[in-house]
Amino acid sequence: MKALHRPDLFGWSSFDAARNVDFHGLAWIRPEGNVLVDPMPMGSHDLAHLVALGGAEHVIVTNSDHVRAAADLRRILGARIHGPAAERDGFPIACDEWLADGDEPVPGMVALALDGSKTPGELALLIDGHTLVTGDLVRAHQGGRLMLLPDAKLADKAAAVQSLRRLAELPDIDAVLVGDGWPVFRDGHARLIELLAAVADRGTAG
Amino acid sequence: MKALHRPDLFGWSSFDAARNVDFHGLAWIRPEGNVLVDPMPMGSHDLAHLVALGGAEHVIVTNSDHVRAAADLRRILGARIHGPAAERDGFPIACDEWLADGDEPVPGMVALALDGSKTPGELALLIDGHTLVTGDLVRAHQGGRLMLLPDAKLADKAAAVQSLRRLAELPDIDAVLVGDGWPVFRDGHARLIELLAAVADRGTAG
Repeated sequence: MKALHRPDLFGWSSFDAARNVDFHGLAWIRPEGNVLVDPMPMGSHDLAHLVALGGAEHVIVTNSDHVRAAADLRRILGARIHGPAAERDGFPIACDEWLADGDEPVPGMVALALDGSKTPGELALLIDGHTLVTGDLVRAHQGGRLMLLPDAKLADKAAAVQSLRRLAELPDIDAVLVGDGWPVFRDGHARLIELLAAVADRGTAG
Repeated sequence: MKALHRPDLFGWSSFDAARNVDFHGLAWIRPEGNVLVDPMPMGSHDLAHLVALGGAEHVIVTNSDHVRAAADLRRILGARIHGPAAERDGFPIACDEWLADGDEPVPGMVALALDGSKTPGELALLIDGHTLVTGDLVRAHQGGRLMLLPDAKLADKAAAVQSLRRLAELPDIDAVLVGDGWPVFRDGHARLIELLAAVADRGTAG
C-alpha cells in the first residue's frame, strides 16, 4: 500500500480503463483496530502489508457501487462491514452495521450522509476533522481539481450541491481522499470551495 | 492514461512493491509532436489512447535508471530518444540526442541537469515555466510532501542540495510531476521550498 499524507493512512489503487482514472481503497491504521474504506481488490503484496499492520476490524462501504472487495476482505480478515443506512433495503452485500448522518463507526471518524448523489445517503467520512474521504459524489478526474459526479448520474442536482456546500463549510479540511481519481493532500478546504463556486457558476450559467 | 493538471498532460503508472510507491510515465500532447518522459511499460489500453492522441515523436529519459520502456516505444512509435549528456558513455540504450543543461528538446521544454544525484547530470524538465518534471532526485513517497533521494543513494549530498536550491528558486512552479511517488499539482514552488528547508534543517542538525 502507498503512504498517504499521514503515517497512519495508506491507500491502494487500480486503474479503471473505462474512465481513465485510478480507483482507491483506504486503510486507517489504529491501535484499536484498523478501518478500510471502499476497498479495491488487494493483491497479496498489499494484503500482506495490511496484515503486518494489524489486518482490519472494520470495512466501511460508502455506497452500493463501491462494494468492491468488502465481502472478500471480511472473509479473509474477519472485519465487520458498515454500509449506508439509506441503502439498507437491497444493499448488494450483508452489512453488520448501518451508518446514518453523524454516526461514529469508530472514535475520530464521523459519517456524513450526502443527498442527491446516484445512491441515497452516500457516505463521506471525516477523520479527525481534517481528512475527508469521499465515495462517488466528489471525485477528481483531473489532477489538482475536484469535480462533482456528472449531472446525468445525480438523483437530485440541487440536493447534491447542498451536500457539497456542507462539505465546503467544514473549516479544517487538509486532505480530500476521493474514491475515484487524484487525491488532494493539501488545502482541501480551498479545493472544496473552488468546486462549490464552479458548480454554482455552471448552475447560474445554465 | 490519466489526465493531469492541464489538458495536454497525461500520466500512466505502475505500482512498485519494493518501495510501495507508483512509478509514473508522462505524455505531453503537442500539435507538433508528442513528448514522453521516463515511460513506464504501457498496456494496450494506454498505448491505444496515446496513438489516438498522435503517438510520440520524442522520448526523454532523465537518467539511466529510468530507461523503462523507452526502447520498446521507439520500436512501436518511431520516437527519437533523448538521454542525459553526462551519461553519454555507457548509457544502457542508444540515444538519438543528448541533453545538457539549458537544452530545449522541443519549444517550451527546458532541460535542467542536476548534480549530486545517483547518476551524473540527471535531467529535470521544465514545461512552460510552471510544470517541473523530476526523475529520481526529487520524489514523493508520502502524499503532499516532496523528498530527496535518500542520502545513501546520493553521489554528493551538498551538490544535490545545491541543485534542489536551483529548483526551489524557479518562481512559477505549480506542478511537480515526480517519476516516483505522488505528483504535486498545485503550489509546487511552496512544496520545493519546504523540501529545501527540511533538507537544510537535517543538514544542520547532523
